[in-house]
Amino acid sequence: MHEKYFDHAATTPVDERVLAEMLPYFNEHPGNASSIHHLGKRAEAAVDLARQRVANLLGAEDPYQITFTSGATESNNWVLSRFPIDRIDASPFEHSSVRNFLSYHQCYRGESGLELYAQVLIDNETGAVFCPAEEKKSRGALEVLVDATQGLGKIAFDLEGLDFVSGSAHKIYGPKGVGFLYEANPHLTPMVVGGWQEFGRRSGTLNVPGIVGLGMAAELAREEREVNFAQATELRNIIREELDGIDNLKFNESANQSPFILSVSVLGVEGETIVLDMDQKGFCLSAGSACSSKSTALSPLLLSFGVEPEWIRGTFRISIGKDNSRESSRELGENLRITILNLRNSKKS
Amino acid sequence: MHEKYFDHAATTPVDERVLAEMLPYFNEHPGNASSIHHLGKRAEAAVDLARQRVANLLGAEDPYQITFTSGATESNNWVLSRFPIDRIDASPFEHSSVRNFLSYHQCYRGESGLELYAQVLIDNETGAVFCPAEEKKSRGALEVLVDATQGLGKIAFDLEGLDFVSGSAHKIYGPKGVGFLYEANPHLTPMVVGGWQEFGRRSGTLNVPGIVGLGMAAELAREEREVNFAQATELRNIIREELDGIDNLKFNESANQSPFILSVSVLGVEGETIVLDMDQKGFCLSAGSACSSKSTALSPLLLSFGVEPEWIRGTFRISIGKDNSRESSRELGENLRITILNLRNSKKS
Repeated sequence: MHEKYFDHAATTPVDERVLAEMLPYFNEHPGNASSIHHLGKRAEAAVDLARQRVANLLGAEDPYQITFTSGATESNNWVLSRFPIDRIDASPFEHSSVRNFLSYHQCYRGESGLELYAQVLIDNETGAVFCPAEEKKSRGALEVLVDATQGLGKIAFDLEGLDFVSGSAHKIYGPKGVGFLYEANPHLTPMVVGGWQEFGRRSGTLNVPGIVGLGMAAELAREEREVNFAQATELRNIIREELDGIDNLKFNESANQSPFILSVSVLGVEGETIVLDMDQKGFCLSAGSACSSKSTALSPLLLSFGVEPEWIRGTFRISIGKDNSRESSRELGENLRITILNLRNSKKS
Repeated sequence: MHEKYFDHAATTPVDERVLAEMLPYFNEHPGNASSIHHLGKRAEAAVDLARQRVANLLGAEDPYQITFTSGATESNNWVLSRFPIDRIDASPFEHSSVRNFLSYHQCYRGESGLELYAQVLIDNETGAVFCPAEEKKSRGALEVLVDATQGLGKIAFDLEGLDFVSGSAHKIYGPKGVGFLYEANPHLTPMVVGGWQEFGRRSGTLNVPGIVGLGMAAELAREEREVNFAQATELRNIIREELDGIDNLKFNESANQSPFILSVSVLGVEGETIVLDMDQKGFCLSAGSACSSKSTALSPLLLSFGVEPEWIRGTFRISIGKDNSRESSRELGENLRITILNLRNSKKS
């Protein structure tokens, strides 16, 4: 249905199988999971199953390590807000929910020991893959927060050495507005207080259909990870080949790279102009990450890659998903070639 | 479909018309509302319409006064967390998301002026209706936070004199996991920081289907408020008549009472036992509010009503909604009568 949607790192369409699992919980089984009657118990059981499924995706020992939240942004804020602001540090490549938290709260690295280091698993602009357990060790941090949003169901990763892992359903073909936090050793005090849902860790009436959707999305992501990885690798290569050979174009790639994201920089055209032109042709791309699409700041990661500002301004992101096909990938490449050349020519004339 | 569900104060089934509006945003229009392509713009437009609809329900001047959150618990925590802990006070009848926030954070009324007073609009256990604007004035508070969750679409109320109003979609036949905060004069600093969604007030990828559902639920709640009010009044009277005359039974009612809630206390039987017995007969009721169903603390409101502890233990709540009918209300009353008498007799033997 969404063959020309190449913006899966921003959000994904809900998988029909996920939606089918969610639907009965909107109306047929509408209970509040805290209620003691049969509709409440039914809702609670559905939440329990979802918790187990998320634990399975992560390879967590115990579903009790999973807390449901409204999404990875909340999860990240929750963790960061529980630590002293002079004992947190983060990689320069963090998602805005970590980066902007630190700057907004004027966090600074003090003289005392590092309690929390935040290291994203996969950068959402370039697809660069990091190794948070190693970063934690090399920084001498007591604990590490890993925003795994772009890695869940995409690459295999090991919980060994990780203390907090956050994610969102809507990046793995689940619904928006629901996510989770994994704690290796659950001990965080709550950020949201009220009816003591979620073992007292996160209050508020549970979003039962959303949680059911997250659970099913996690189940499918686990089962289909290898197939999806192989497909993304193939489609990325097709697009790459189509673009290869265009003058003044380069791929922003790291040694350890996710195949789901292809970051491209060109000279002489703005990334946003390319995205808007391609949109006219029905293709959805992104100039940066959706979370920073309204900001004009230059990507710290691209700068660290040594990409120069004039190239960064001509950067766009292709993010591949299971809706995409070989045909639409080839078509994307062909259209991008035409778009870039046309835009360059129109600037000359 | 849910004629025997009398727990609408805990949560409501999603209205089929609400679900119909939401459905296309799961898969057909899956965009991230921050994306600049057509799917992003489509999502953003849907969010704008929902914001207008929520503003219309409240009678707010400007949709810009509405911020979407994950629910009223988050909204309440957001407001409370923005004020100094010695300058907040609250009525004794607040929802757990206010009451427990204050006790968890050890808030106390200091000597300095009162900046924020929290006054729930309708108590979720008894249906007592309060007048927050008057409470604000009589307390000399600078601002008032009104948790309107149990009042939205149920009773008419005026925004005059109110500074913050919170609510949840799932109490008005919308989806769980989404709510809002109204600010008369938007000025709160954010609790959740990241991609600066929601005018920078609440970060995180917007829950587009959930927000669309909240918008449609608000629209229907506004249009059908008077019909729903009349229906609840009629059904409540039917149930009340059926129960009248049972020995040692009383209704916990206030001078200003919501017809959607009927709190009943009996002597000699635990409220929870009644709820579980009625559940066997297919009726969903509540012993307290769902948010405190797992706690055994006595309701501060019932205590303030002068209800004695032995009566409070025998309290259950009937909360009426548009799924209920005259027939099921009569049947509820008849079954309750039998249940209460049987449970009392079985204790004697």
